[in-house]
Amino acid sequence: MGWIKVVGIGPGDINDMTLKAYNVLKECDVVVGYTTYINLIKPLIEDKEVISLGMRKEIDRAKKAVELALQGKNVCIVSSGDAGIYGMAGLMFEVVHKENIDLKIEVIPGVTALNAAAAILGAPVMQDFAVISLSDHLVPWQVIEKRLALSAQADFVIVLYNPKSKERPENLMKAQKIIMKYKKEDIPVGIVKNASREGQQVIITTLKEMANYEIDMRTIVIIGNESTYVENGKMVTPRGYVL
Amino acid sequence: MGWIKVVGIGPGDINDMTLKAYNVLKECDVVVGYTTYINLIKPLIEDKEVISLGMRKEIDRAKKAVELALQGKNVCIVSSGDAGIYGMAGLMFEVVHKENIDLKIEVIPGVTALNAAAAILGAPVMQDFAVISLSDHLVPWQVIEKRLALSAQADFVIVLYNPKSKERPENLMKAQKIIMKYKKEDIPVGIVKNASREGQQVIITTLKEMANYEIDMRTIVIIGNESTYVENGKMVTPRGYVL
Repeated sequence: MGWIKVVGIGPGDINDMTLKAYNVLKECDVVVGYTTYINLIKPLIEDKEVISLGMRKEIDRAKKAVELALQGKNVCIVSSGDAGIYGMAGLMFEVVHKENIDLKIEVIPGVTALNAAAAILGAPVMQDFAVISLSDHLVPWQVIEKRLALSAQADFVIVLYNPKSKERPENLMKAQKIIMKYKKEDIPVGIVKNASREGQQVIITTLKEMANYEIDMRTIVIIGNESTYVENGKMVTPRGYVL
Repeated sequence: MGWIKVVGIGPGDINDMTLKAYNVLKECDVVVGYTTYINLIKPLIEDKEVISLGMRKEIDRAKKAVELALQGKNVCIVSSGDAGIYGMAGLMFEVVHKENIDLKIEVIPGVTALNAAAAILGAPVMQDFAVISLSDHLVPWQVIEKRLALSAQADFVIVLYNPKSKERPENLMKAQKIIMKYKKEDIPVGIVKNASREGQQVIITTLKEMANYEIDMRTIVIIGNESTYVENGKMVTPRGYVL
């Protein structure tokens, strides 16, 4: 029987991948992944069998990885960012637990989009923070609304994943409205599209203005807390040191 | 004038470092860091000038890095995990902004302790989550208490950094008490000490029992949400897929 490693490949640039991820991709027999992510690592896996499947095919990808491992192959299933944060790690365990398959699964952590976006913006996530996906495909919108309101009340730095899709263009404006009930409208907001990938775009704006920019599923939005400031083009949340 | 790169070296094992972090450490002239972290990367920086300073010397380290860069040296200042999450990135910007120094600072993101701990536990952070440090050295305890209560009400997966120090042994029990007001006492909790470092220890327990274990500042505690389960020794928070 082969093994399965769920590999976080980082935000996009191969240089943001860990040495461990790089090496397991070189060692495995087959790479399974979403077509877009497979393309990001193409130069690394040219000699491998590659199974790439499109969007919304997560369950098929997980089952395919299990099937291949049961055939004796060593399988890397890739996720962008960190496989453990809105990635494929959970689903892999769910599939083997549901089907009661005795298969070793290892998760190789990676740099998630929030770490990459924060580094590009400066240092906006230096204090306690909440991470919320605005996709209501798998989580009811009422739950997301509740989490937005409570995080804003707690004055967390708020990191939004999947802020806007073609199917749900209005979720970001709804989120903004909820957060503005508790946070000041001039709080800095960083918007990073395609962090560490081709077409990277960085905008620093405010809570009031943030919905006016072009935002999509490949964008991370970071909303500061009450101490966050912008200086010399960098967004910084002080940690609390007295200088 | 030299440059400063704030480098997240990952949780501890050199293999969890990104290729970019690995390469900039090789390229720089001087490495500045906390003694413990310098020791983790010793084999990589044997030919470098190294300035290592002890705990609570964060401001001195940041100022030293600036001083060296102004002398024309290329400086890496290292942080364990991701420099942008409870690391040195914020302080570096604060120091140059305060002193109005025109110095280029780049942040190299890394795998933070939460990513590493989650990967070791299974997949506990697959849904929205809140990250809270229990150290009240820089943030007032009342703020931390409020954030704990609101995150528990939001049913976030809650990740605790700096859960227990010798100076503040009681904060973890106080946090547990607050969270138990809103979360069920049998919710799974993962405790990872020295994630990806020598002496790694992993415990999976419950919210009710978590404070009975030996926990220190090098431990990450991950408290599940209402759907988190444990099976075959792995802690998993389902993302919401219907299998």
